[in-house]
Amino acid sequence: MISTLTRVSKVGYSQFNRNLVRFASSSAKKHEKVLNIETMHPLIKNVEYAVRGALPIRAEALSKQLKTDPSKLNFDKVVFCNIGNPQQLNQKPITFFRQVASLCENPELLKAENRHLISKLYPADAINRAEVLLKNIGSIGAYSHSKGIPHIRENVAKFIERRDGCEANPDNIFLTQGASEGVQKVLQLLTEHDKTGIMIPIPQYPLYSATLSLVDAKPVPYYLDEQNDWGLDRKGLEKAVHEARDNGVDVRALVIINPGNPTGQCLSEENMRDIIDFCHTERIVLLADEVYQTNIYQPEHRPFHSFKKVLKSMGPEYQEQELFSFHSISKGMIGECGRRGGYFECVHIDPEIMDQLYKISSVSLCPNIHGQIMVDLMTNPPVEGDASYPQYKEEIDAIYQSLRRRAIKLATCFNNLEGVTCNSAEGAMYLFPQIRLPQKAIKEAEKAGMAADTYYSMAMLEATGVCVVPGSGFGQQQGTYHFRSTFLPEEHLFDTFCSSLEAFHKEFLNKYRD
Amino acid sequence: MISTLTRVSKVGYSQFNRNLVRFASSSAKKHEKVLNIETMHPLIKNVEYAVRGALPIRAEALSKQLKTDPSKLNFDKVVFCNIGNPQQLNQKPITFFRQVASLCENPELLKAENRHLISKLYPADAINRAEVLLKNIGSIGAYSHSKGIPHIRENVAKFIERRDGCEANPDNIFLTQGASEGVQKVLQLLTEHDKTGIMIPIPQYPLYSATLSLVDAKPVPYYLDEQNDWGLDRKGLEKAVHEARDNGVDVRALVIINPGNPTGQCLSEENMRDIIDFCHTERIVLLADEVYQTNIYQPEHRPFHSFKKVLKSMGPEYQEQELFSFHSISKGMIGECGRRGGYFECVHIDPEIMDQLYKISSVSLCPNIHGQIMVDLMTNPPVEGDASYPQYKEEIDAIYQSLRRRAIKLATCFNNLEGVTCNSAEGAMYLFPQIRLPQKAIKEAEKAGMAADTYYSMAMLEATGVCVVPGSGFGQQQGTYHFRSTFLPEEHLFDTFCSSLEAFHKEFLNKYRD
Repeated sequence: MISTLTRVSKVGYSQFNRNLVRFASSSAKKHEKVLNIETMHPLIKNVEYAVRGALPIRAEALSKQLKTDPSKLNFDKVVFCNIGNPQQLNQKPITFFRQVASLCENPELLKAENRHLISKLYPADAINRAEVLLKNIGSIGAYSHSKGIPHIRENVAKFIERRDGCEANPDNIFLTQGASEGVQKVLQLLTEHDKTGIMIPIPQYPLYSATLSLVDAKPVPYYLDEQNDWGLDRKGLEKAVHEARDNGVDVRALVIINPGNPTGQCLSEENMRDIIDFCHTERIVLLADEVYQTNIYQPEHRPFHSFKKVLKSMGPEYQEQELFSFHSISKGMIGECGRRGGYFECVHIDPEIMDQLYKISSVSLCPNIHGQIMVDLMTNPPVEGDASYPQYKEEIDAIYQSLRRRAIKLATCFNNLEGVTCNSAEGAMYLFPQIRLPQKAIKEAEKAGMAADTYYSMAMLEATGVCVVPGSGFGQQQGTYHFRSTFLPEEHLFDTFCSSLEAFHKEFLNKYRD
Repeated sequence: MISTLTRVSKVGYSQFNRNLVRFASSSAKKHEKVLNIETMHPLIKNVEYAVRGALPIRAEALSKQLKTDPSKLNFDKVVFCNIGNPQQLNQKPITFFRQVASLCENPELLKAENRHLISKLYPADAINRAEVLLKNIGSIGAYSHSKGIPHIRENVAKFIERRDGCEANPDNIFLTQGASEGVQKVLQLLTEHDKTGIMIPIPQYPLYSATLSLVDAKPVPYYLDEQNDWGLDRKGLEKAVHEARDNGVDVRALVIINPGNPTGQCLSEENMRDIIDFCHTERIVLLADEVYQTNIYQPEHRPFHSFKKVLKSMGPEYQEQELFSFHSISKGMIGECGRRGGYFECVHIDPEIMDQLYKISSVSLCPNIHGQIMVDLMTNPPVEGDASYPQYKEEIDAIYQSLRRRAIKLATCFNNLEGVTCNSAEGAMYLFPQIRLPQKAIKEAEKAGMAADTYYSMAMLEATGVCVVPGSGFGQQQGTYHFRSTFLPEEHLFDTFCSSLEAFHKEFLNKYRD
């Protein structure tokens, strides 16, 4: 029974008590099913994924309870701050993007007999764009090229060229169903055997640890420096890689999330050069998760630089340095998560590896066309002079300014809490405050079989309806406790949101004060 | 060098000569890249995927050549019969489905001030449906529940209940990004170790062999009986499972594609009972790929029965028999391949396994919402009395009748060719004729380092622009040669299509006649 319990807590996924009951009752009929917890793929069993783990499962149950039996709850709304899902919290989609997408969806509207009506509902540039896309795609109901529609990959390449001021080749771009799919493919490709090591930041986005579990590669953690705005330290990287190699781990790649998730830092160019040089020296492939590249809140102090741009600026000595860069339509000011779209660019990657990536992409046939269309729109938005430009700019600016205000407001709120410190967000959509918990709370958590920050976050959810993710889901320095919260709740609700967190925190400390 | 060549031909993916050049030139700088063909994931290297392999790559090149330098080619169009991609060959989407999808995409259209204009462009039931969907989804730009939107899973369950006359539970349904994604997840979950065996039909759809390569499970082939309309034979199944087990393979599951791909058979209820009883006796999980369930061309002789319905009709003795059933929006009369949508139903699956499936789905966050919406429309189409019903019915019927006529026409064409025999299509979208090739052709193919049916298919492509997939990509009885062709070319082009195949075949035989 002890080993079963250990597994449950390691899997850390389903609700603890539910599993306990299940294990007890299922042991009798253990062998009735061919496919059961004992006979399934062992690596899947080991996967943890906190962003959608125990907390959100409880949050969903509370959401349901609010509809059926709200009287026992102290809140009238569950606020999902566990996941960067802006439109779930009523962020409005970009009008032009949805106009184009809806015309592509229903090309009947573009027929001559409907033109008169359509011109009253759609601006001319949205109609034009839909026509250009349809001409290049054919039907959006057909499978496309497995790497993505060539026309859209060309537009992505042009976007990268404008961003970085250096050449990009459409053949090096793979469109994907969100950045996650690309990351999973590349991490698997990199894994030669179970001693293959991939360096990941701690704290990290759990997609990385989950995927490494799944492909049976060794995560080689390196720690971000909380005292130093979650920056990277070359000495720390060197220590991590040398220790791993001394232990027989064959380190092949380094993952950097910039701007950071859950930590929100945006790296300086100098720091990036140092990291690239480290990879070059140590023969390590660089994976740059750059999905938050437009979520930049201190642009003068910490502007975004792509790793490709910095790499290309470092001269011919680095012309073999391998880099994968990932981008997504889910973040930025667009927030079209549900569409599942993104791309990755392969920089200095072996042509045979490119063929293998193409082959493996073809097994899933193609990324969905709607996601591809949104990648086109993201990388090729209205420009000055276009009919839709003023509205587009207004919408983007409004979302950006609001996100920036909320980032500051929430950090201030956290920093005002007793025993809590929180770095400001230079980028991304999250804050990752450190909470100092009283010993009594830590012991209570232990009794309940939970990490102490899970215990705290669960108490927050039950008291306020706010769902965050405990720091243990991302990794953190031993003996420290954190949680990750998005700053996505709607701005007009933000003061209430902050004061409910304050009230909860006070009550929690008072209850467990040593 | 010999081993390199062997690998190229085993991978069978890129164009032979291209790889040859690459291997030769890359051997010098072998160690310049950290990630290269020697250091990559070995299982990915082994994957073969013929549907998008050497033939379609050549077909794409020819497509480009038609635009730049058509004078050297004997045809004015490349016809992609290698893949069931109806809308690529101009099959029209179902009007109602696209109307609803476009309204969901642009909810601004549903605002009061636009209602007057919208009512001139959209029927009332499309507007209603979009409103119901948006009410249940919220924004289509947000991540949904990782198993799919609850409202849509409820509609899928009702569809299954209507189809089978027995209960279906929405909690047992996972929406997916196409059937392929579901199949890949379930096959991986079933693979405990590298001796795990999964029975697959030969010929098979290469998704299965590719996925088994990737998850390192053992394919346990069983042969479909070409003489007997590609039927399944229980004795053959028993022989396959016993032989595999005698060789230390731990057989866990059986894949059946019904209606068949590439073979087009539709199983009789009697045959299905026999197969279920075989699985029950041998303790084997049944995976039923039922994506062609509405592509049924001999409904009196061979109607479609779902495996779930037949299983449920067999009484309490079978109430633990595990079954996964897969469905898709890509096939049927809908053909919305590019959207990547589908679902699978879990029947009698262990609840802990359901939790694991949920966990692993959550790592990819959610299936794309557009695919989910199309699953809703597919399983819950207009019914008699709805404004859109007459048009919906007319469109579905027209596509169905045309597919049926084309299936017959193409089978007749093949059967009239010298040395070719072809079973008629009871279902699906493909024919899989057997071609008897002259020894001279077989030898020429050998010299070129190709399977003989690849050689034949490549010659067909070069002569006619028609792209099919060689039988060796699906597996076939040793010493036999086949190819798979869809019967999706447009009906008004069908006679020309058939006569160009006839002319090519005659010429090919004359050239190589022994």
